[in-house]
Amino acid sequence: MTSELNLDLLRSVRIGLPEAVLCAGKSAAQLRAIVAQLIEQKKSMLFTRVDDDAHRIVSEAAGGALPIDDDRTSRTTYVGAAPAPHAMTRVAVVTAGSSDVPVAKEAVRTLQWHGENALEMYDVGVAGLWRLVERVPELQTMRVVICVAGMDAALPSVVGGLVPGVVIAVPTSTGYGVARSGETALHAALCACSSGVVVTNIDNGYGAACAAIRALGAAKKP
Amino acid sequence: MTSELNLDLLRSVRIGLPEAVLCAGKSAAQLRAIVAQLIEQKKSMLFTRVDDDAHRIVSEAAGGALPIDDDRTSRTTYVGAAPAPHAMTRVAVVTAGSSDVPVAKEAVRTLQWHGENALEMYDVGVAGLWRLVERVPELQTMRVVICVAGMDAALPSVVGGLVPGVVIAVPTSTGYGVARSGETALHAALCACSSGVVVTNIDNGYGAACAAIRALGAAKKP
Amino acid sequence: MTSELNLDLLRSVRIGLPEAVLCAGKSAAQLRAIVAQLIEQKKSMLFTRVDDDAHRIVSEAAGGALPIDDDRTSRTTYVGAAPAPHAMTRVAVVTAGSSDVPVAKEAVRTLQWHGENALEMYDVGVAGLWRLVERVPELQTMRVVICVAGMDAALPSVVGGLVPGVVIAVPTSTGYGVARSGETALHAALCACSSGVVVTNIDNGYGAACAAIRALGAAKKP
Amino acid sequence: MTSELNLDLLRSVRIGLPEAVLCAGKSAAQLRAIVAQLIEQKKSMLFTRVDDDAHRIVSEAAGGALPIDDDRTSRTTYVGAAPAPHAMTRVAVVTAGSSDVPVAKEAVRTLQWHGENALEMYDVGVAGLWRLVERVPELQTMRVVICVAGMDAALPSVVGGLVPGVVIAVPTSTGYGVARSGETALHAALCACSSGVVVTNIDNGYGAACAAIRALGAAKKP
Amino acid sequence: MTSELNLDLLRSVRIGLPEAVLCAGKSAAQLRAIVAQLIEQKKSMLFTRVDDDAHRIVSEAAGGALPIDDDRTSRTTYVGAAPAPHAMTRVAVVTAGSSDVPVAKEAVRTLQWHGENALEMYDVGVAGLWRLVERVPELQTMRVVICVAGMDAALPSVVGGLVPGVVIAVPTSTGYGVARSGETALHAALCACSSGVVVTNIDNGYGAACAAIRALGAAKKP
Amino acid sequence: MTSELNLDLLRSVRIGLPEAVLCAGKSAAQLRAIVAQLIEQKKSMLFTRVDDDAHRIVSEAAGGALPIDDDRTSRTTYVGAAPAPHAMTRVAVVTAGSSDVPVAKEAVRTLQWHGENALEMYDVGVAGLWRLVERVPELQTMRVVICVAGMDAALPSVVGGLVPGVVIAVPTSTGYGVARSGETALHAALCACSSGVVVTNIDNGYGAACAAIRALGAAKKP
Amino acid sequence: MTSELNLDLLRSVRIGLPEAVLCAGKSAAQLRAIVAQLIEQKKSMLFTRVDDDAHRIVSEAAGGALPIDDDRTSRTTYVGAAPAPHAMTRVAVVTAGSSDVPVAKEAVRTLQWHGENALEMYDVGVAGLWRLVERVPELQTMRVVICVAGMDAALPSVVGGLVPGVVIAVPTSTGYGVARSGETALHAALCACSSGVVVTNIDNGYGAACAAIRALGAAKKP
Amino acid sequence: MTSELNLDLLRSVRIGLPEAVLCAGKSAAQLRAIVAQLIEQKKSMLFTRVDDDAHRIVSEAAGGALPIDDDRTSRTTYVGAAPAPHAMTRVAVVTAGSSDVPVAKEAVRTLQWHGENALEMYDVGVAGLWRLVERVPELQTMRVVICVAGMDAALPSVVGGLVPGVVIAVPTSTGYGVARSGETALHAALCACSSGVVVTNIDNGYGAACAAIRALGAAKKP
Repeated sequence: MTSELNLDLLRSVRIGLPEAVLCAGKSAAQLRAIVAQLIEQKKSMLFTRVDDDAHRIVSEAAGGALPIDDDRTSRTTYVGAAPAPHAMTRVAVVTAGSSDVPVAKEAVRTLQWHGENALEMYDVGVAGLWRLVERVPELQTMRVVICVAGMDAALPSVVGGLVPGVVIAVPTSTGYGVARSGETALHAALCACSSGVVVTNIDNGYGAACAAIRALGAAKKP
Repeated sequence: MTSELNLDLLRSVRIGLPEAVLCAGKSAAQLRAIVAQLIEQKKSMLFTRVDDDAHRIVSEAAGGALPIDDDRTSRTTYVGAAPAPHAMTRVAVVTAGSSDVPVAKEAVRTLQWHGENALEMYDVGVAGLWRLVERVPELQTMRVVICVAGMDAALPSVVGGLVPGVVIAVPTSTGYGVARSGETALHAALCACSSGVVVTNIDNGYGAACAAIRALGAAKKP
Repeated sequence: MTSELNLDLLRSVRIGLPEAVLCAGKSAAQLRAIVAQLIEQKKSMLFTRVDDDAHRIVSEAAGGALPIDDDRTSRTTYVGAAPAPHAMTRVAVVTAGSSDVPVAKEAVRTLQWHGENALEMYDVGVAGLWRLVERVPELQTMRVVICVAGMDAALPSVVGGLVPGVVIAVPTSTGYGVARSGETALHAALCACSSGVVVTNIDNGYGAACAAIRALGAAKKP
Repeated sequence: MTSELNLDLLRSVRIGLPEAVLCAGKSAAQLRAIVAQLIEQKKSMLFTRVDDDAHRIVSEAAGGALPIDDDRTSRTTYVGAAPAPHAMTRVAVVTAGSSDVPVAKEAVRTLQWHGENALEMYDVGVAGLWRLVERVPELQTMRVVICVAGMDAALPSVVGGLVPGVVIAVPTSTGYGVARSGETALHAALCACSSGVVVTNIDNGYGAACAAIRALGAAKKP
Repeated sequence: MTSELNLDLLRSVRIGLPEAVLCAGKSAAQLRAIVAQLIEQKKSMLFTRVDDDAHRIVSEAAGGALPIDDDRTSRTTYVGAAPAPHAMTRVAVVTAGSSDVPVAKEAVRTLQWHGENALEMYDVGVAGLWRLVERVPELQTMRVVICVAGMDAALPSVVGGLVPGVVIAVPTSTGYGVARSGETALHAALCACSSGVVVTNIDNGYGAACAAIRALGAAKKP
Repeated sequence: MTSELNLDLLRSVRIGLPEAVLCAGKSAAQLRAIVAQLIEQKKSMLFTRVDDDAHRIVSEAAGGALPIDDDRTSRTTYVGAAPAPHAMTRVAVVTAGSSDVPVAKEAVRTLQWHGENALEMYDVGVAGLWRLVERVPELQTMRVVICVAGMDAALPSVVGGLVPGVVIAVPTSTGYGVARSGETALHAALCACSSGVVVTNIDNGYGAACAAIRALGAAKKP
Repeated sequence: MTSELNLDLLRSVRIGLPEAVLCAGKSAAQLRAIVAQLIEQKKSMLFTRVDDDAHRIVSEAAGGALPIDDDRTSRTTYVGAAPAPHAMTRVAVVTAGSSDVPVAKEAVRTLQWHGENALEMYDVGVAGLWRLVERVPELQTMRVVICVAGMDAALPSVVGGLVPGVVIAVPTSTGYGVARSGETALHAALCACSSGVVVTNIDNGYGAACAAIRALGAAKKP
Repeated sequence: MTSELNLDLLRSVRIGLPEAVLCAGKSAAQLRAIVAQLIEQKKSMLFTRVDDDAHRIVSEAAGGALPIDDDRTSRTTYVGAAPAPHAMTRVAVVTAGSSDVPVAKEAVRTLQWHGENALEMYDVGVAGLWRLVERVPELQTMRVVICVAGMDAALPSVVGGLVPGVVIAVPTSTGYGVARSGETALHAALCACSSGVVVTNIDNGYGAACAAIRALGAAKKP
């Protein structure tokens, strides 16, 4: 079974981001083989899209050999030790609605896994504009703002016109009908009127956090 | 040629909205036949989507027999006399950008053809939020607000959360790439987070104005 | 958990429409937190898309502290007291088929929550034209007609040519194959030949009712 | 050049429908080669989608060797002799709007090429329902009714519920925005609520006429 | 509950096709109300898309009051008496694969309900061309050939070039990936190279049979 | 039941590829009839898309009469005897990720059923480029390389620029959001920058193996 | 200008296929720079998608310094010397209609540029099945059959069931309406019922020829 | 005319990015009004999507009152003075092919307008992998890498796995057929296997540069 797997354990050295394990689509045998390899090599790794079955499989495979830190809202599991957090909060994660929270939490958990705290600001969609407006000053101090929104994804457009930091839109699959499982939010975010808004795949809180890490990491370079 | 046409001249009596002529797709012979019929029956009519060729054909066909009032920005022509305007301004037409103005003007001209003035408020897209916010009090007094916006169409979501009147979103075909000739704006507007926003076809300023007339006319009924 | 929620309890003051709770996508914990907040603040609220699980959670959370009025066809729940109904029936809700009834009922229940009665007229699709034609006089007295139809959504086109009131099309996800879960009905309604038909998202009976409230409420303004 | 062509001159014997030439996509050399072959074999043939360039090429190639009967509205050309018309009118061709007439005329001309007259009934779309209703008795006597309609294509649904004959919907590429060059009309027609409506490709007046010929021809068989 | 239903019991008189009941999307209460109405009025009716639950509900509702003839492959139920079959077989129902058989059977059962026998010819897709070719003579005697095919739907193109009768393509939702639940088959059938092939919605065996009845019935008219 | 089936048992003689049975979409009765026919005619056959139910049905139907060789990862079953393997390994099957392995295994099993070994190389996606680069020399000796990849399907582009053999891309339905169940991978593979990459339907490991057999078999011809 | 270009002149050594120049999308300055580089390095190269402007630019740039062999039907230009043809004809290029010929010729010209002759067989679409059937024996001797077809692309399905060689489908953008500029043909070809048909991008005659070269070249390897 | 415009001249103060003028969709009168306003207020501004007509209009309007720096490849115009360049090159702009250069140049020109130099690296697509690989060390020193690629957009996936900086993918509308005017590249880039790649709208070189400025600017904040 292991021959089906080919973990890129040196990725962290190369690009500053260690490989993570997307559990969706992996068989139980593959998940067990990954955990076994981590135990053997004394490595730690972030698991994402961990549904309840995968959670059980990974926990059992880790046994007591590796510490497990799991979060069911974000469906993420830390296998092995996480780093100490950075002293400052440099990234905000903002959602339009409460249904967007699980995706936002995936971003927050990924940031924490890389040692970054996050300012969490939820349910501030533009239909009730003042909820957002009164918190703009906080957002203006952030180096990165991750906007998690489904439906019409108007949030990143508004935020992009108000803050100077990197604005990353994460469209979500919330909504129904012509929301088209997030495609409308995705396309709307790509057409955001504010300059320089960038976008990830639908529900990709993990990817947004990685992009934020890249942006912060870049800051250390000349 | 006339046998290809079948004008519904009693529509105004039935639903309060006279038929209008969508010039796009009609042959020169058909346009001439319509104008001849109007001259013969001493009627007036609104022509929309009047490109430069259609404008020339209609003008020549009308000759001096009927007054012509044409506007090239909105590509609309009044053939025959328009009604006197209503005393109050009850409808606002708002655009996100300056590229949306031709569609907005189609709405304004259609409103005027039915005797309604319009408050025109252009280029107040949410990327520069304060342009819109400072004019919200004016919008809150309107019975109908027509929001004309392309790209991500965030404008109707924001307006819908701020005003009590009927909010009609008109998506426009401005933009490029994934704006998809207005489909992204259309789908985003249909997913607007604010409750009770309704939507027309892409670039359909005429239809939005008709819906506004319906809403205002309805007010006269019990 | 409450920090994930940010209810806009003053929306009613601002735009005349109180916020409602779309249950789909919300976690059990979020639903419980909303009900707790309502109990604490002695507020009432409309819940929509209440599947059987959500219904159980909301009912249990309300306990005896707030009255509950639930309807399983429309999947709506009133938590707290509803207003007294308006004296006149000013809105009709019409369906093409019997499969469209749940969406229609969502509109009717939302109207009632805002104090409006509705004339309900079901299964009058255009394939059996006389079912509709014989009831046109009733529809012509309405200030708003909500047309709920799936498949080819021919109903709003026909109705829009027969009545002077506001015509709101609600496409539904009924049908199969190229009905595409309501997208064909949506696009057809947006292309309705009758002037001034406006459209909501697929299955959005709630939104159509809110638009009707806006149209009726607008009538009170100058 | 002739080796690029492979006319199926015996098709008429096999299925009762002779081959026709779709000019769109064919080079000038190919068109000339086809006409030359017809002259040589003393055959006649229907040409469709004959734009002005193709019209000129075909006319010149035919010279005086074959009679030419061309119609610019339908963009069809008869090269060679057409059959005598059938004594009865058994097919109606109906359009929703005047922009649909060119496609309707392609059907009419194809029917005539096969010896069938057509009852032409144009601009009777359902937005002005009485235009259609008053002519239903005529349609009820027809063995085939071809409904040509763009936009929301509500016409075939209504007609299908009123007449017993074969109902063939031809969606057209008229309209704009979400009409999507006829795809919305196509999908709506395929979802027509009336039982047994069948559909052709967008703008395919030729195909609808061929299907009508099949239906009529079939009537001669046991 | 009955007020949600509005059966068109005179449709048969008007267009020669009685109304049928599409069970999908109908609630148990609605199905029971329909059967009760049939019992009360001593009518019979065809039920389609009868899944196992609907089958049980309909059977129980009919009790012994009306005869029931159910077929699980086609998911159709005759409630009440069916007519005697026509003396001749005038319609063929052909499938490309064995997965298309349930849809084909829906057509066959609908034909039988209207008194028409059907020649059934299954699993003769063009990938094994000779299976089809050796049976062409049988097909050439038919007045209507219904071609049921998914995937690339090449079957109606080939059949359309070989037989003179009406050719009705029924695309099916068989296949996977880019078969797109039947949309590829649908679009391919609409583009069939053979002249005069007409098409129904995906999996619409019922509609194809109704169109066949129209074509045969038409033959009785002048 | 057998009359619903029409196995093409001579296909192997005609094109060198025996027919296989795609279980998805087939009823239990149809599967049993196929196995019965194989037993009767003493033939062997490859079954694909064998879910757990189908696996049980086929196994039971074969009883002891025919040997069964089943693989649950690839969901393939050999019913009857497989040929001896070819002496050389001429085909590589490469995957981008570990989630693509089931599709790859379907290709491998199909190859083995036709007597071809396969070099299996898994989880070498371009995000960790060196995993692939270090194994290019092996791939350069292969006559066919089957690239199985979902998401952005960048793998076939890179491989196509590095090896001289036939490169067949098999897009997979792995991924989420805008991966669109494999359509993005499909379209990306069709746009592969490297010359002469060919593509199969999504998840069609069976088809890719058949194409490889054609390429190898062709090599025996002049 | 040259810094915008980065020709991969060693590709031929690596994968057996030299780089070609896709003219579409390249500026005049870029085309001139490429030709200048070829003259300087005494190389030859195939240019594709050479519209009339590009043809003039390339011809002028080559001056007398390099031989030019241009073909306007296929819009291909050989700049520099082509190889001597292979002794045997191992590839057939087949089209469904005469409108598909330009794409077929692009494949033929690309094959010839690599030293391969092609059997050209045009206008043998399945609507006139016997045109194809009578030529099947010729096709059965070929190692590769390239099927060029638009509309419903039924041709590769039929051919794939009749010949043992590699079958490559090239969908074309011929047709109208739901042909969708070749997407329907593309998707239909990917769903071809015959096993092991592979597919290229729409109108990609060049790519199909390259795939054929790969298949033939593979034959030389062990 | 000026009332149609509402320039956001303080945007630079708020978010660090001055407003720019997207010329596409703006009328000649609007462009002239913008330039007049700049002259009056002594401001400078970047114009993008400046086609030849717009270029002429803007140049004439500026007269000698403001300096003009225009680039036809990128279709950008600087109206007024540009800032002095930053001392270090911190952003790379990379293209897959030479057809992607105009979009890349739009990014480069936008960067320069904000005082940033760019490392330009063109025509290094993954079909010729070594062109890219040999330049990876340069890319690894960059804080931002903008990857401009059409077709299958494999470039950002490969780059994202090799460099630690921010990776921004700009899909382009190059290519044909299923490239779908850039949608395939867009969707593929959003599915990029490498972690943390972010994406802009199709052909949006301007937006990518703005995002890069945000990332660099962010570095100055705490």
